[in-house]
Amino acid sequence: MYTDLPLAELQSLRTSAVAPDDLDAFWRRTVDASRAKAAPPVVVPVDTGLTTLDVFDVTFSGFEGQPIRAWLRVPAGATGPLPTVVQYVGYGGGRGHAVDELQLASAGFAHLHMDTRGQGSGWSPGDTPDVAPDTGAQAPGVMTRGIGSPETYYYRRLMTDAVLAVDAARQLEQVDGDRIAVKGGSQGGALAIAASAFSPHVKAALVRVPFLADFPRAIVITDAYPFREVTDWLRIHRGRADEALSTLAYFDSSLLAQRASVPGDFTVGLMDEITPPSTVYAAYNAWAGEKQMTVWQYNGHDGGGLDDLPRELDFLRRHLA
Amino acid sequence: MYTDLPLAELQSLRTSAVAPDDLDAFWRRTVDASRAKAAPPVVVPVDTGLTTLDVFDVTFSGFEGQPIRAWLRVPAGATGPLPTVVQYVGYGGGRGHAVDELQLASAGFAHLHMDTRGQGSGWSPGDTPDVAPDTGAQAPGVMTRGIGSPETYYYRRLMTDAVLAVDAARQLEQVDGDRIAVKGGSQGGALAIAASAFSPHVKAALVRVPFLADFPRAIVITDAYPFREVTDWLRIHRGRADEALSTLAYFDSSLLAQRASVPGDFTVGLMDEITPPSTVYAAYNAWAGEKQMTVWQYNGHDGGGLDDLPRELDFLRRHLA
Amino acid sequence: MYTDLPLAELQSLRTSAVAPDDLDAFWRRTVDASRAKAAPPVVVPVDTGLTTLDVFDVTFSGFEGQPIRAWLRVPAGATGPLPTVVQYVGYGGGRGHAVDELQLASAGFAHLHMDTRGQGSGWSPGDTPDVAPDTGAQAPGVMTRGIGSPETYYYRRLMTDAVLAVDAARQLEQVDGDRIAVKGGSQGGALAIAASAFSPHVKAALVRVPFLADFPRAIVITDAYPFREVTDWLRIHRGRADEALSTLAYFDSSLLAQRASVPGDFTVGLMDEITPPSTVYAAYNAWAGEKQMTVWQYNGHDGGGLDDLPRELDFLRRHLA
Amino acid sequence: MYTDLPLAELQSLRTSAVAPDDLDAFWRRTVDASRAKAAPPVVVPVDTGLTTLDVFDVTFSGFEGQPIRAWLRVPAGATGPLPTVVQYVGYGGGRGHAVDELQLASAGFAHLHMDTRGQGSGWSPGDTPDVAPDTGAQAPGVMTRGIGSPETYYYRRLMTDAVLAVDAARQLEQVDGDRIAVKGGSQGGALAIAASAFSPHVKAALVRVPFLADFPRAIVITDAYPFREVTDWLRIHRGRADEALSTLAYFDSSLLAQRASVPGDFTVGLMDEITPPSTVYAAYNAWAGEKQMTVWQYNGHDGGGLDDLPRELDFLRRHLA
Amino acid sequence: MYTDLPLAELQSLRTSAVAPDDLDAFWRRTVDASRAKAAPPVVVPVDTGLTTLDVFDVTFSGFEGQPIRAWLRVPAGATGPLPTVVQYVGYGGGRGHAVDELQLASAGFAHLHMDTRGQGSGWSPGDTPDVAPDTGAQAPGVMTRGIGSPETYYYRRLMTDAVLAVDAARQLEQVDGDRIAVKGGSQGGALAIAASAFSPHVKAALVRVPFLADFPRAIVITDAYPFREVTDWLRIHRGRADEALSTLAYFDSSLLAQRASVPGDFTVGLMDEITPPSTVYAAYNAWAGEKQMTVWQYNGHDGGGLDDLPRELDFLRRHLA
Amino acid sequence: MYTDLPLAELQSLRTSAVAPDDLDAFWRRTVDASRAKAAPPVVVPVDTGLTTLDVFDVTFSGFEGQPIRAWLRVPAGATGPLPTVVQYVGYGGGRGHAVDELQLASAGFAHLHMDTRGQGSGWSPGDTPDVAPDTGAQAPGVMTRGIGSPETYYYRRLMTDAVLAVDAARQLEQVDGDRIAVKGGSQGGALAIAASAFSPHVKAALVRVPFLADFPRAIVITDAYPFREVTDWLRIHRGRADEALSTLAYFDSSLLAQRASVPGDFTVGLMDEITPPSTVYAAYNAWAGEKQMTVWQYNGHDGGGLDDLPRELDFLRRHLA
Repeated sequence: MYTDLPLAELQSLRTSAVAPDDLDAFWRRTVDASRAKAAPPVVVPVDTGLTTLDVFDVTFSGFEGQPIRAWLRVPAGATGPLPTVVQYVGYGGGRGHAVDELQLASAGFAHLHMDTRGQGSGWSPGDTPDVAPDTGAQAPGVMTRGIGSPETYYYRRLMTDAVLAVDAARQLEQVDGDRIAVKGGSQGGALAIAASAFSPHVKAALVRVPFLADFPRAIVITDAYPFREVTDWLRIHRGRADEALSTLAYFDSSLLAQRASVPGDFTVGLMDEITPPSTVYAAYNAWAGEKQMTVWQYNGHDGGGLDDLPRELDFLRRHLA
Repeated sequence: MYTDLPLAELQSLRTSAVAPDDLDAFWRRTVDASRAKAAPPVVVPVDTGLTTLDVFDVTFSGFEGQPIRAWLRVPAGATGPLPTVVQYVGYGGGRGHAVDELQLASAGFAHLHMDTRGQGSGWSPGDTPDVAPDTGAQAPGVMTRGIGSPETYYYRRLMTDAVLAVDAARQLEQVDGDRIAVKGGSQGGALAIAASAFSPHVKAALVRVPFLADFPRAIVITDAYPFREVTDWLRIHRGRADEALSTLAYFDSSLLAQRASVPGDFTVGLMDEITPPSTVYAAYNAWAGEKQMTVWQYNGHDGGGLDDLPRELDFLRRHLA
Repeated sequence: MYTDLPLAELQSLRTSAVAPDDLDAFWRRTVDASRAKAAPPVVVPVDTGLTTLDVFDVTFSGFEGQPIRAWLRVPAGATGPLPTVVQYVGYGGGRGHAVDELQLASAGFAHLHMDTRGQGSGWSPGDTPDVAPDTGAQAPGVMTRGIGSPETYYYRRLMTDAVLAVDAARQLEQVDGDRIAVKGGSQGGALAIAASAFSPHVKAALVRVPFLADFPRAIVITDAYPFREVTDWLRIHRGRADEALSTLAYFDSSLLAQRASVPGDFTVGLMDEITPPSTVYAAYNAWAGEKQMTVWQYNGHDGGGLDDLPRELDFLRRHLA
Repeated sequence: MYTDLPLAELQSLRTSAVAPDDLDAFWRRTVDASRAKAAPPVVVPVDTGLTTLDVFDVTFSGFEGQPIRAWLRVPAGATGPLPTVVQYVGYGGGRGHAVDELQLASAGFAHLHMDTRGQGSGWSPGDTPDVAPDTGAQAPGVMTRGIGSPETYYYRRLMTDAVLAVDAARQLEQVDGDRIAVKGGSQGGALAIAASAFSPHVKAALVRVPFLADFPRAIVITDAYPFREVTDWLRIHRGRADEALSTLAYFDSSLLAQRASVPGDFTVGLMDEITPPSTVYAAYNAWAGEKQMTVWQYNGHDGGGLDDLPRELDFLRRHLA
Repeated sequence: MYTDLPLAELQSLRTSAVAPDDLDAFWRRTVDASRAKAAPPVVVPVDTGLTTLDVFDVTFSGFEGQPIRAWLRVPAGATGPLPTVVQYVGYGGGRGHAVDELQLASAGFAHLHMDTRGQGSGWSPGDTPDVAPDTGAQAPGVMTRGIGSPETYYYRRLMTDAVLAVDAARQLEQVDGDRIAVKGGSQGGALAIAASAFSPHVKAALVRVPFLADFPRAIVITDAYPFREVTDWLRIHRGRADEALSTLAYFDSSLLAQRASVPGDFTVGLMDEITPPSTVYAAYNAWAGEKQMTVWQYNGHDGGGLDDLPRELDFLRRHLA
Repeated sequence: MYTDLPLAELQSLRTSAVAPDDLDAFWRRTVDASRAKAAPPVVVPVDTGLTTLDVFDVTFSGFEGQPIRAWLRVPAGATGPLPTVVQYVGYGGGRGHAVDELQLASAGFAHLHMDTRGQGSGWSPGDTPDVAPDTGAQAPGVMTRGIGSPETYYYRRLMTDAVLAVDAARQLEQVDGDRIAVKGGSQGGALAIAASAFSPHVKAALVRVPFLADFPRAIVITDAYPFREVTDWLRIHRGRADEALSTLAYFDSSLLAQRASVPGDFTVGLMDEITPPSTVYAAYNAWAGEKQMTVWQYNGHDGGGLDDLPRELDFLRRHLA
């Protein structure tokens, strides 16, 4: 069943989140500091048994230079420069198996599939630790890890990884640094928004049912995890809501979307309880670039699944031409 | 947690199912009659946007000549003859998207991915109807469709499709008819067993957490669907248990496994509630060919997932050499 | 708790479903074709051990002349002609036991209790197969069986059975063919509406919490089965919603109700999640005949239960006098 | 799935409950005291609209002379004396509707359907209050009401009602006082056992999936309600287990069954979680009279349902001849 | 997530319950009659092992003089007269352990913690029986015990206990009879309202997430227990809703609040499903005395927990000065 | 219901975990290194409004000198030296409110209530961050944080905190350093075992339903969290079970218990699913000191609750005399 407002209201909704005055400064400082610590990516071939594709295990410099893992998949023998998609993963998962998600490389793209620090144990494996200077008292999961301040919040580290993954991609021999798109669903969609907002090298974005949008609204309209991790924390830490919401504003994908100016292809599921449609539209309506929305009327958080692929390939070919 | 007997007991367990005297005659008659109605497969190229693989929409003759759909995936431009894997799908799913499950073709095999008649609406789409002369009074799902007699039982039709898919594969230009293996998980594993038992053209089988094994035991040791569909039906149709179990014996994968003589690579998850380990071992222990079992100690019905792939490729290359 | 709109809004609600232009033609053609294949009903006495009632096992001709089972219950030794109630069963059930639901016969009516093809394994047993030329790829249950076209859709067959049950009743010696009412709850209520719409021999209808009404609204306002079978199917078969909804319009009980002109006695439960009150009212408000609604304010899909019986007997005696 | 021991072990199991030395004295004293306060039953005809049956609203004297309601159903116009069945109701229900459960009267029996004091709001309505001198601190439900002592325990009152219902039946004009059987399922089965044990006028008993048997075992092998009400209470009232189990022993149907010497027809469902098979067998194995057990292999607490009726009628006709 | 109306609407909401004309007379008569039967409280020291506090087991006269238990906790050696808090317990619990909830006594108050008749087996133990002259046919729990009439309804007895607990407190040597406040959460909050309404000796009230408010609205907007016990009963006892709601009106805490004129400190959780915010506000908005509301925005029925204590102590010190 | 083996088998069970050769060396090195970085505790009075107790906010040096919070509660004005209990908290909670759990201080003990790093958002608040050099890819919660090596595993840090809390206690003026006991339930019980094993200053231990015992057995016999976090991780990280179990062995409370020689008072709940009785007994049976076990026969993970307090006070007074 529908989980949110009627479509007409969704289409005109504005986020209820308010950007902190220093949001841009915070992110500029954060990204610059980490970029300054970056080393060249390390690329190791993986023996997968595949014959039509080559897969590499990539380690690049993320937040504060910490090593972040990724898979690079390309057509066998490709030397590039190829149009490229940097992909981010949904909540709880990691980069998965070297031989999973072969579509983009099989369609001729270089496909850099970034791991998610500290996650990667819920539904697909990951290999990247989260080095957390201070996780505070937190609810299980990462939604409230370090929520006491934007400096210590988990997504500061992960979003910086996402931005720097684009930098790293540009240093790979198979990649055409002027033809890079980002892609992701749910948490991965939020990361794609963040990368679009803060990396000048992103040319287009595929954003599926994006997460982390319009926190003030999201946490009072859904009981579903992972948004609910925040209310679980607020329930115990009474009186710290202002502090937490003030932190979250720096990472709210509906605010970051205002800073993205490239073409964006979005999806939403009208029966989505995890990222309720109004939060998805909060990000979409805020997106500053050219944009299109595909409404999956009878789907939930699964959105369009592989039914999105033909439109994705078309979108990528138009914008990475 | 473990859902069944200790491993040592599993390894020596025998199925409690008893083969009807005319089991072989029944199947010989069934397959022969359908084979007699077979027409050559129809192969239509699909425009997927992939560049490293070619995908074809195949329609072949299944039970009683009824049209069954499948995807054929091969390396781009391959003309064969290639070593080939015919794959069957788990309960509730269909052949899925043309661009899903690209691993085998990307590893150089011809990959014929058979649709499942009448299913394909639970977790992956399907395109093949079930033409059912008489579904009887049935529980939701297909487990009790036509259970009143082996003649009308759903799996008579589906298992015949599975056997004839191998016939059809042999007629495809990309396929080396002497190097065909079958593969499947859960229901797909049961179909792989059936094809191994009744098709002389199968050379090896990859059987993951197979379903439909040891019905008399299975239905009293688990409450999980889809085995539970049978007890749901028996609960209402009191007094018809002998009739139902007598039908099921013709399709019990632990009895069919006794008729398979090719090399078999099996998996089991010791925390599996859907196909409890003792039912999987009932099939494995009965398997008449050379065999090996991979035990996934902390997994359920997910078994080994893509972690099985390296061993699969090795097994295939050894037995389809 | 209340599951839908306030009562005042329910009372003025109109269905959102739109009748296809050829709805009447479709049904006329369907019913006529099946009626042409009808044979006289076969009536076999059942030894139930009851002394105040006689029970018969009736087999009559339903869709395309296929044999449909029913129970006929009458006061012991009754030869008729008696006022008669043809009753249809809710989703998942069959005609049940010969000795169940004795109230109507014990009140002096001939009671023809029709079986439900292919169902009858969920909560009461059934004995009638569904002969399905093409079930397509379907979700478990019957809601999406053959949904690709009105020609193949399951309810085409079942609703035709319901209409022809009235024809069959008229041929039974105990039945007064001019005094026949129909009755049913949930799916049975939808069948009662269909029979009222398409059989000229129905004189009154008892419609309890009717199902299958206002599909376009129903599937987006409830997550409860069996309406949810439709969204389960649409979730997987993305892009086929128009096709499916176009099929469903031929069977929407809120559209069929517009074609019923006999007196109707309806019930609704304001706490009903399975047939939400607004869908029940969509059918009730559309009903073209004289009508009355009993609102069960604190009940769900159980509606009035046996508390409806006194009013039912009064209604029947007035309209079958 | 099976919820308990293998059948062979069930068949030889003995109850773990131990009868208090004064059990018989307690019950003799209790029943005698209440019998001394009994007044003749009051019988009021009910206008049900039925024509083949007459229904009466009976009020008789139960525990300490308190008024207990019941329905009496007989073939229309019957004056008797008829063979008679006194029936008791399962946990949470009351005597239900006047027009429900018409089978026994329709088969020619006088059918006295006793209400359950204080219950009758869970699945069928009741009309009899429980006058409780002291309910103590209790868990929701009646299982721990007054559990501090056999004198105050709820089932002392209800079981006495059950015994006196037989006395009352004998005073009804339609009843043949020498041909009375008792019947019940679950809690009703326990009451049928109690009446068989303590009333000299019972000639046979139909005992379906009886409850309240072998408390010491039951409460540690199942988590299902209503047995669980006892463990809910024990969990809070730590250190009072001896006191509670000492009370329960006076009402344990496996101990009362040792005091029943009439023919008994029992049923059990091997998939029953509510009255686990071993507790049912604890009562059956203890039954001192001639006995027979019907095993419903694939059923739970629903047992045989109406499929039991033919055997019931046969049993009744043999033993009430 | 939020479970009810927006805050602005909550703040102006009025109860939908209507006070019976004789509500005040009913309560005056009830309390006076019970007060007339009261005996002096009996106070027995408890050996708890604590050294900073003394604990006493108090038995006082409640409804109709029936003995009600309570704990009295005071600073060790205190002889008084102390400012005093009489506390009532939430649904399902009893007075708990002698050594639980030590905060108020440790803060220098005499703390009289009243037991709850017949409850005390759900989450904390109780020791007080409910002597129920007539519990009627009831749903499990106490919400429908005796609901057929205000005379027999359970809360008549319990609310009278609550009023007389204040009388009893005044007779304890440690208590300053002119400085008594009441406190409670959920059901305890409703009892605090009742005591404030009907005892002239209450000087202030701490009312946390109060229960039993605005029954006509509550039972149609939440499915959560214990309000749901009422709809469970109404579902079975169709046609008795007027009778039940007429009884409940005498005990509706939103109507009793209109009769309370002392200062009140309230709390509400905006994510509360058990006592939905609109029902809490129905009581708060009706409260006739000086009042203040603390809104716990991200909490459910847990409300403020111990985070309320500083404000409570401040409130008590101001109003019991 | 009982969740594990019969009591007699529990009493003779031995842990299946095997201690690594360097377990003692690992812990000696770990504790010594952290002890070397310790600074004196900082003690700040808290204004709680209590008059019979004083509460202080303590910050002491834990793992690697990191600051750990705790509450110190003592009788008002106490200057000591007092017998002392250092208490640890269960999984998911923190030290809670300053004014919670007042029993031990009210009984005359100094009560040091240690916070739990990084937790404290599940059911009671916490204030201490976890500084995690490398959390690896982890499941939500802390059970798999850093599980790749004993050096990085979360419980290395937390157990060291627990040991050093005893050191810190000895530096507090109110504490008699020769009369210190430790206490905890579940995770807190495991920490009490660890402190008993590795701190020479512990004189006695109160261990309630201890967690973290016999990992190899625990993770295959229960599906309940938090043990299940480990299997969730193993399910995804196939092939890393040896590595994970090898890490866990350093922290298995059934192995640490072998290193504890002080008197121990244990509890177990026979209906416990979270720490199954066999795992509790694995720790108890291994405990090297004098010991006593209280079996709560009808309780789960709640164990004895406050019903344990009298025995606790007696035990403490005997062993801290």
